[in-house]
Amino acid sequence: MTAGRTKRQEKAKAAARELDSSRKVSILWLRDVLRVLCRKRTATRKEIITETGLNTASLSHTIKYLSRHGTVLKVGSLESEAGRRREVYNLNAEAAFFLALDFEQRLRFALLNLAGDIRGHWELPLEWGEAPDMERILQGFQRLLRTLEPHQVRRVVALGISYSGMLDGQGRLTAVNLGLRNFPFVSELNEKMKSLVSPDLAIFLEPDRHCAMWAERWLGQAREHRNSILLFSESGIGCGLCVDGKPVEGWRNLAGEIGHITVSADPNLHCKCGKQGCLETVASSPAIVRHYLALTGQRNRKERAVTALEVYDKARGGDGSARTVVDRAVEGMALALSHVIHLINPGIIILGDDFAGPEDYLIPQLRAKLENLVLPELMDGIQIVASHLGPDMRLRGAGALALRKSLEAPELLTKICSPVLPHSKR
Amino acid sequence: MTAGRTKRQEKAKAAARELDSSRKVSILWLRDVLRVLCRKRTATRKEIITETGLNTASLSHTIKYLSRHGTVLKVGSLESEAGRRREVYNLNAEAAFFLALDFEQRLRFALLNLAGDIRGHWELPLEWGEAPDMERILQGFQRLLRTLEPHQVRRVVALGISYSGMLDGQGRLTAVNLGLRNFPFVSELNEKMKSLVSPDLAIFLEPDRHCAMWAERWLGQAREHRNSILLFSESGIGCGLCVDGKPVEGWRNLAGEIGHITVSADPNLHCKCGKQGCLETVASSPAIVRHYLALTGQRNRKERAVTALEVYDKARGGDGSARTVVDRAVEGMALALSHVIHLINPGIIILGDDFAGPEDYLIPQLRAKLENLVLPELMDGIQIVASHLGPDMRLRGAGALALRKSLEAPELLTKICSPVLPHSKR
Repeated sequence: MTAGRTKRQEKAKAAARELDSSRKVSILWLRDVLRVLCRKRTATRKEIITETGLNTASLSHTIKYLSRHGTVLKVGSLESEAGRRREVYNLNAEAAFFLALDFEQRLRFALLNLAGDIRGHWELPLEWGEAPDMERILQGFQRLLRTLEPHQVRRVVALGISYSGMLDGQGRLTAVNLGLRNFPFVSELNEKMKSLVSPDLAIFLEPDRHCAMWAERWLGQAREHRNSILLFSESGIGCGLCVDGKPVEGWRNLAGEIGHITVSADPNLHCKCGKQGCLETVASSPAIVRHYLALTGQRNRKERAVTALEVYDKARGGDGSARTVVDRAVEGMALALSHVIHLINPGIIILGDDFAGPEDYLIPQLRAKLENLVLPELMDGIQIVASHLGPDMRLRGAGALALRKSLEAPELLTKICSPVLPHSKR
Repeated sequence: MTAGRTKRQEKAKAAARELDSSRKVSILWLRDVLRVLCRKRTATRKEIITETGLNTASLSHTIKYLSRHGTVLKVGSLESEAGRRREVYNLNAEAAFFLALDFEQRLRFALLNLAGDIRGHWELPLEWGEAPDMERILQGFQRLLRTLEPHQVRRVVALGISYSGMLDGQGRLTAVNLGLRNFPFVSELNEKMKSLVSPDLAIFLEPDRHCAMWAERWLGQAREHRNSILLFSESGIGCGLCVDGKPVEGWRNLAGEIGHITVSADPNLHCKCGKQGCLETVASSPAIVRHYLALTGQRNRKERAVTALEVYDKARGGDGSARTVVDRAVEGMALALSHVIHLINPGIIILGDDFAGPEDYLIPQLRAKLENLVLPELMDGIQIVASHLGPDMRLRGAGALALRKSLEAPELLTKICSPVLPHSKR
């Protein structure tokens, strides 16, 4: 009868039954409360109620359950203006751990706790076109796991992976900017990581733009914004959209392709996608460098002779050629962002990666151009800021992915909430 | 102590407590199950589990509760291939009623049941610039309510209103295309409708584009699509975006302003918003008419001499001037839609209102142009279709709004699920 069910489904059902039947706590309440605490770390009863919509009875049951298990700690009471005590709860950040991998031009590894702190960090350079050595990847994870006590290793819940490029149905990765084609990534990693950590370890993968957005939502500038845009530049242009508190994934997980929005009618702006005038052809970091070298008669110099950040610096310093290049980039960015603003009505626009460096120069120009392109009621009060997460944005996002997906899966949520017994050896 | 709480909050809390404490049914489960049944009308146990993620025990409690109260009826069992019986549940569509109002160039009224069937319908023309007579509006609702039995009137849960224009913080409506400025709509209506129906009646308002999207999601082409776009034309151009199953509202409820996306650099295309080259200046129905009259030397004729639908018809018939006008409109629509597709990755694009009429002519052209503008992986498998909801789209959407918001509010959800006693007189 159960032949059609997968093991995973059965486990999820058993976990949900266990929670539902023996206690008055619904798995949905646990999820909602942990979502708030993982984002805020510390919250009052009232804040949790406001954000989750739970009633006080359900919240009490849930908090009691989480406190008994050591997932949440009561840290005291604040006196409010009206003289009533407000109970304050703190997340036990070491109640669960997550592994994260940013699969980009460098492979970056991290071990994070439930509050998003990076507990360990490691990286490995990757040559263009070179398939990464699986043994070295495993050694990297091993090195991170060695920083944990054995009882903590059992609380490593999931691995989150941020990748650029496309994964096919067989879990093979094709990433043009890394020179990889059909690299059999997922199946091999899956098996080896499970034997390294535990057979229960869950592995989640998402495109880098979604991971970066999750990082901003969990730990960065989007924490208090339910509707936001993240625009970042490296080899291409990435865009994370957050609508009503959740990153937009799209029908086939392909949302956020802002880099291929047409922003120019210039027929000489060929994009590697085969179209013309895409945003990437004027505003990505390689495009900035390419146009600057062409304009200064250095067309034949190696592109690495100058970086995009240096071109932004020159423009800030008054260099005419650099200004021309950056002006065109900003024009393209403003046009593409004007579409996003009309469509999504975000409260904040976050610039990341190479766009975050020259923020003092870029943001005022971008705002001025947007004001000409966007309806005033949509520009009114909108924030334009730089990301603070730096080069760890996607890596932290991979951790955020692992956390979010784990909260959604009953059997992983149960693992996060299982009793914390620091001195037990099994 | 309770001075700071509103009556509404207290009611919501009481309702939630009542449900939580006396039964094993969480209000969240009721909401999730009803959301599925209101959309599908009939569903098997397995379908409900797949869509809600509930476990079998929680679903059993919920279905038992809803069956006991008459909100859901068991309609029988299907034999599945494997020989196991699949239990089928049917929504009792008359368990609750909603009033709907489409506040547009005509005022359209409807009474809907829980499955979205229009039980009664009425309309009232509105002269441009004329503030609608509140007494006549109330008479309209009264007429609809008279079609119900008294015990049914007590099950009218909420009124949903679709409006074009902007509502300010005091509930005053400003609608340029209706010639209304600061019309004190909400406060007056609120009081009078509550005394007409019941003091519990909830009133919800949303912009027409969000209502239209809800109608497509509940009753139309978007029913099976979690990521969709609805583009419709009347006096302006409206756009509803649905991401992960929910219409996108934006930070300040202003999402979907596709009509003001810049699609042309022609400096003669002045938009009434003050910018140039907005999509509305080439593709809205008044723009289609205006350009056609100008091109055929009839610039001074009254605009009503021809309708947008007639211009589409002439273009289909080979009229050169009409083709020029429609080509430019399609080009603008394709460019604006290409942005939406890159950003949101929808599975379906739905054309409504005046765009739905000439679908056989518009859709192939639109698809051809989109294929030149959009990354192939984003066009692959995308559907482009016409809405089937006709002129009732926004009216049904207002009903859908009332339903959706009622499912979210514990005290209204409780009213929907209260025991159905058709023969009781109180």
